[in-house]
Amino acid sequence: MSTPPTAGADAGRTTDRGADRCFSPEPSTRALARELYAEIESLPLVSPHGHVDPRMLAEDAPLPDPAQLFIIPDHYVFRMLYSQGLPMEDVGVPSRDGTPVEQDPRAIWRRFAQHFQLFRGTPTGLWLTLELERLFGVDEKLRAENADEIYDVIETRLRLPEYRPRALFERFNIHTLATTDAATDTLEHHQAMRDSGFTRVRPTFRPDAVLNLDADGWRANLETLARVSGIDVTDYASYLAAIEQRRAHFKALGATATDHAALTADVAPLSPAEVGAIFARALAGNSAAGDAPRFTAHMLFEMARMSSEDGLVMQLHVGSLRNHNRAVFERFGLDKGADIPVATTWTRALRPLLDAYGNDPRYRLVVFTLDESSYSRELAPMAGHYPALRLGAPWWFFDSVKGMERYLDAVLETAGAYNLAGFNDDTRAFASIPARHEVWRRVVANWLAGQTLRGLMDDEDARALARALAYEQALDSYRLS
Amino acid sequence: MSTPPTAGADAGRTTDRGADRCFSPEPSTRALARELYAEIESLPLVSPHGHVDPRMLAEDAPLPDPAQLFIIPDHYVFRMLYSQGLPMEDVGVPSRDGTPVEQDPRAIWRRFAQHFQLFRGTPTGLWLTLELERLFGVDEKLRAENADEIYDVIETRLRLPEYRPRALFERFNIHTLATTDAATDTLEHHQAMRDSGFTRVRPTFRPDAVLNLDADGWRANLETLARVSGIDVTDYASYLAAIEQRRAHFKALGATATDHAALTADVAPLSPAEVGAIFARALAGNSAAGDAPRFTAHMLFEMARMSSEDGLVMQLHVGSLRNHNRAVFERFGLDKGADIPVATTWTRALRPLLDAYGNDPRYRLVVFTLDESSYSRELAPMAGHYPALRLGAPWWFFDSVKGMERYLDAVLETAGAYNLAGFNDDTRAFASIPARHEVWRRVVANWLAGQTLRGLMDDEDARALARALAYEQALDSYRLS
Amino acid sequence: MSTPPTAGADAGRTTDRGADRCFSPEPSTRALARELYAEIESLPLVSPHGHVDPRMLAEDAPLPDPAQLFIIPDHYVFRMLYSQGLPMEDVGVPSRDGTPVEQDPRAIWRRFAQHFQLFRGTPTGLWLTLELERLFGVDEKLRAENADEIYDVIETRLRLPEYRPRALFERFNIHTLATTDAATDTLEHHQAMRDSGFTRVRPTFRPDAVLNLDADGWRANLETLARVSGIDVTDYASYLAAIEQRRAHFKALGATATDHAALTADVAPLSPAEVGAIFARALAGNSAAGDAPRFTAHMLFEMARMSSEDGLVMQLHVGSLRNHNRAVFERFGLDKGADIPVATTWTRALRPLLDAYGNDPRYRLVVFTLDESSYSRELAPMAGHYPALRLGAPWWFFDSVKGMERYLDAVLETAGAYNLAGFNDDTRAFASIPARHEVWRRVVANWLAGQTLRGLMDDEDARALARALAYEQALDSYRLS
Repeated sequence: MSTPPTAGADAGRTTDRGADRCFSPEPSTRALARELYAEIESLPLVSPHGHVDPRMLAEDAPLPDPAQLFIIPDHYVFRMLYSQGLPMEDVGVPSRDGTPVEQDPRAIWRRFAQHFQLFRGTPTGLWLTLELERLFGVDEKLRAENADEIYDVIETRLRLPEYRPRALFERFNIHTLATTDAATDTLEHHQAMRDSGFTRVRPTFRPDAVLNLDADGWRANLETLARVSGIDVTDYASYLAAIEQRRAHFKALGATATDHAALTADVAPLSPAEVGAIFARALAGNSAAGDAPRFTAHMLFEMARMSSEDGLVMQLHVGSLRNHNRAVFERFGLDKGADIPVATTWTRALRPLLDAYGNDPRYRLVVFTLDESSYSRELAPMAGHYPALRLGAPWWFFDSVKGMERYLDAVLETAGAYNLAGFNDDTRAFASIPARHEVWRRVVANWLAGQTLRGLMDDEDARALARALAYEQALDSYRLS
Repeated sequence: MSTPPTAGADAGRTTDRGADRCFSPEPSTRALARELYAEIESLPLVSPHGHVDPRMLAEDAPLPDPAQLFIIPDHYVFRMLYSQGLPMEDVGVPSRDGTPVEQDPRAIWRRFAQHFQLFRGTPTGLWLTLELERLFGVDEKLRAENADEIYDVIETRLRLPEYRPRALFERFNIHTLATTDAATDTLEHHQAMRDSGFTRVRPTFRPDAVLNLDADGWRANLETLARVSGIDVTDYASYLAAIEQRRAHFKALGATATDHAALTADVAPLSPAEVGAIFARALAGNSAAGDAPRFTAHMLFEMARMSSEDGLVMQLHVGSLRNHNRAVFERFGLDKGADIPVATTWTRALRPLLDAYGNDPRYRLVVFTLDESSYSRELAPMAGHYPALRLGAPWWFFDSVKGMERYLDAVLETAGAYNLAGFNDDTRAFASIPARHEVWRRVVANWLAGQTLRGLMDDEDARALARALAYEQALDSYRLS
Repeated sequence: MSTPPTAGADAGRTTDRGADRCFSPEPSTRALARELYAEIESLPLVSPHGHVDPRMLAEDAPLPDPAQLFIIPDHYVFRMLYSQGLPMEDVGVPSRDGTPVEQDPRAIWRRFAQHFQLFRGTPTGLWLTLELERLFGVDEKLRAENADEIYDVIETRLRLPEYRPRALFERFNIHTLATTDAATDTLEHHQAMRDSGFTRVRPTFRPDAVLNLDADGWRANLETLARVSGIDVTDYASYLAAIEQRRAHFKALGATATDHAALTADVAPLSPAEVGAIFARALAGNSAAGDAPRFTAHMLFEMARMSSEDGLVMQLHVGSLRNHNRAVFERFGLDKGADIPVATTWTRALRPLLDAYGNDPRYRLVVFTLDESSYSRELAPMAGHYPALRLGAPWWFFDSVKGMERYLDAVLETAGAYNLAGFNDDTRAFASIPARHEVWRRVVANWLAGQTLRGLMDDEDARALARALAYEQALDSYRLS
């Protein structure tokens, strides 16, 4: 399908594409991007939102094989393979209906290598390239022909002590890594790390499974909530008390934030009578039509109220219609690359919340969107006004070079840099964390270089903003400093 | 209005703007864009969707005069003239209410030349410039002063045998050209071409006029459908049978695709009882309010079902509110530059279709949007997951240099290149086909050069993607290879 | 927070960032941008829409202190300070509830200087930099350390006769400046300027306060309307007559345009019976739910009818949800940086208006949006067809370098340049007018340079479009030439 590069292919190009990755080919921009990047390249990584398993860091066992590390748990990877006809079974994605799936990690890796051209031009391809280079010393591009050789390199290294999770944590120079944990989680891995004096991993309170009446097993979740909180949940008041108990527990173990996923940005408080009745119906298994979204919208308001009291930063991720592909969901379950965004509006939806808490210095809200049209239309104007509001990093599909550039283009002029929440990697792939931060830092350096050379800021401003966007804003926005 | 360029105007610019048209002025990008373009420039043109009249190619009569060739049938041209106050009557657009219109092609051409500055910076201006250069050897810009001279050059050439349609077809190096034909079309021109052994022109099945209950003359169309299919259409079942007969006929004459235009992306099957009742009401001339959109949404689902059976690729063009200007419609009819897009969402609308057929390897859907906000929000994520879905080329107003760049920026990172359907020219202006493909290929080469120089892909990737986007993806997506 | 630039920071950069501000760092683009800018830099400024107080120019008293000039009335400034926790009271924003606010202009200026880093990368920061340079000869960046010194420079200059408003008007080379005036305004300052022979300031008819039934004090406004028009407003017919009297008065004093703000673009005429009943209910203080938006939509249609008769250009600013922050509104009132855009659609909303007047050469409509997704989707296609429609400049949050570039990218290919209304500064900050036009002209020159070097237009086209976008289109669109 492809032709090897000809001898003359690089004629006239004198740059080191690896060292200058993500930078503009225009020489003055590239030179200044290099300078700016050099100043932020080695800053510690702040990872205030992500999905790394705390057990991995608590137990510090060797990382698994290359297929487990790069393919099987990463829906960015297998959704693309699937879109081109490769069954998920063939790359070992576990089924929940008993369908047999490939178990041989080397066979999975070979299939991935055979199809690696599908990732041309994608962030997934870029991250993998960076990980192979930076972490495993592999400079060759993955292909069918070198699949086994690269597999062996990775597998060998993963057995070394310096590739244990905690050793990598140090090598990655991670300042803070926040995990995402159910409200009912007992956080024993977090407890163990704290007990051992390792306090750079923090939990994040994610109560979706007890806030959304239509969540799978909501009533069972309430029972777990009652058990772990020690509060008998019999009505709305005891339910709130149990949630508050969990928040306090998370905070005691280092949490500085909560996280909430919702289909819409609607936040709307109900009267005590209304919410009590909805809760009672749900507890009795008799929810009426419309109860679930109204309850969620109400509970997000309650979460804001609690945040204004306990100071946990509230994150809101809006706009993903989960499990769009029914057949895939039935066979493989959640998070299989079939979550598709919907059009999202914020101005009216967030108004009740911002009316109540938007001017409150104890409250902080960080929002994330999958509808880029809302960046310049709604989110940047709101973030540029409300003291409580910060605009989160480009999320999910927009965690990419072009996605980041569109984000900076769309929001920075209106919101200013200091109303942005910096970067977060949002990943469950621990080994990819440095690659993701590297891309952000390079894009930021390059973007600021362009602005500077256009006379829209001076060197002092560019250096300050590089540092802010790469490091300081994440610390400050998540109350980690 | 304009000043002649001064002697020093080109100081410091050493490039040949014609040879480097559409390429970045940055030298390293330009150099690599040239290399990439050189590899795809001469690939055959694949035109899997457009509106060329098959009679023209079947009969191979000389092309008409310059006004007929460039102005009268091209709503891209006369809408812009009209927007600045030039009556459509003055450029010969045929009226349907008896209003007299200009008949003299030279007078029409002169008016166009007088107003050619209105096309500064537009794709229409670019295409005309390329056609004059490449096809007629005219390097001068069209103006009032040279209008007659250029008219004469064109008219003289059009009389030559090498400017007959079939000679141009060869000269253009067209691999495949698909026309768009009503379901009731008897395809005699296609039959004639096939009979003569010329098989590079293919019909496309476009059944809108029999699917949309509110189409002009729907019941008369059904009578024609019955006649040409030989199936008496008396109820919903016989209606489906007649449509299936037509699909088979199209396929026998080379069709590989169907095409559907709709105001929204709604696809939603009805129960047999519901659809039978709606059809019966329509046949009796008693349609109820809401019948038409529900029937269209249902029939699009049926079209997907038939495509999954006969393998015809299904194209869906969504979001144009036709005939927005009532006065223009009343005097001049359809397709007069007054079709205006509306906001379009896809995630929920396509879900029933994708639930049923999105994972089916026999089915293929190619979608086109006029709402760019849906590129990154909905279409790229869906195309990056569903095996059946390909994302169509930037359509209509976005068939332009900036439109193509925004498209590549917005979709390629998320969908990957191999879930895109390549390019189609969508034109009724046969002579403009090479110009339109040239613009796409140049933009693609330039875009890939930029990505490569930023270290986001290597030369091998860039060359492979150039070829894929210029040629292979269109063949593959439309099942032409 | 910031590091001083190192000695080597400018290595390899040889350009004068001040002279080349806003231009691409790519040398050939920069060189051509310079040439194009040189041709439009000194053209007179056309300011057909803005919010300068006519009293200032009629009375020609010295301008106030630096805090009054730059901070207190500028919601672009204090919203950003507020978003980072600086109370509006501290920068002297007048309260309406009696809350005491800072009165010392020097203290206000110092606070602004201390926080000036918040404006890094924002248009507000850019405008202030340009004003300090161009108008006050201050080349240093504002900081806490030089706040007093710069304050003194400004204050001293403001006392000089050449810093009086009319002297600045001449120095700014303003061709025309239109103010925005309530329908009930008696325009005595405009009258006084006309009487003195100074006719380059014109009023604009802004009737929102009498068109919107839910405007603060609507009935009191009607009484004023009756008084100033001399027409007793007792029913809908006399109300229309009073409005027509005011339009004639504005026109007699030089107005060429009206201006209308609305939450949506809905324009929909009511029957005489309906509108009469709604008006009667409102006059009696008995408006029903839904009366206000229906009446506004109807009255916008009436405004179009009147414009088609008296030739006043109709401006429509759509999509800002005013006073989103209730607490801020209650303490400080209107226009405090808390107006947040909402998603806006135009195609269906404007159809009744365009059906009636879109083809009428006497009628002209200029539209402005805060939803950028509507640029390429709806507004450019409509402006590229309807003779009556012009697309207004990038508005408010989009009056920025990136905002202008996105606008040109999104609309020019489809609408063409001659269906755009050029630039307007929309400012209440008189001293910032040249800075705002300078940014637009530089961005336009740079954008056209890029298009030219890519071979998408020639030098003649670029020069003509530079002049059109910088100057001629504003004159023509607002019927000022």
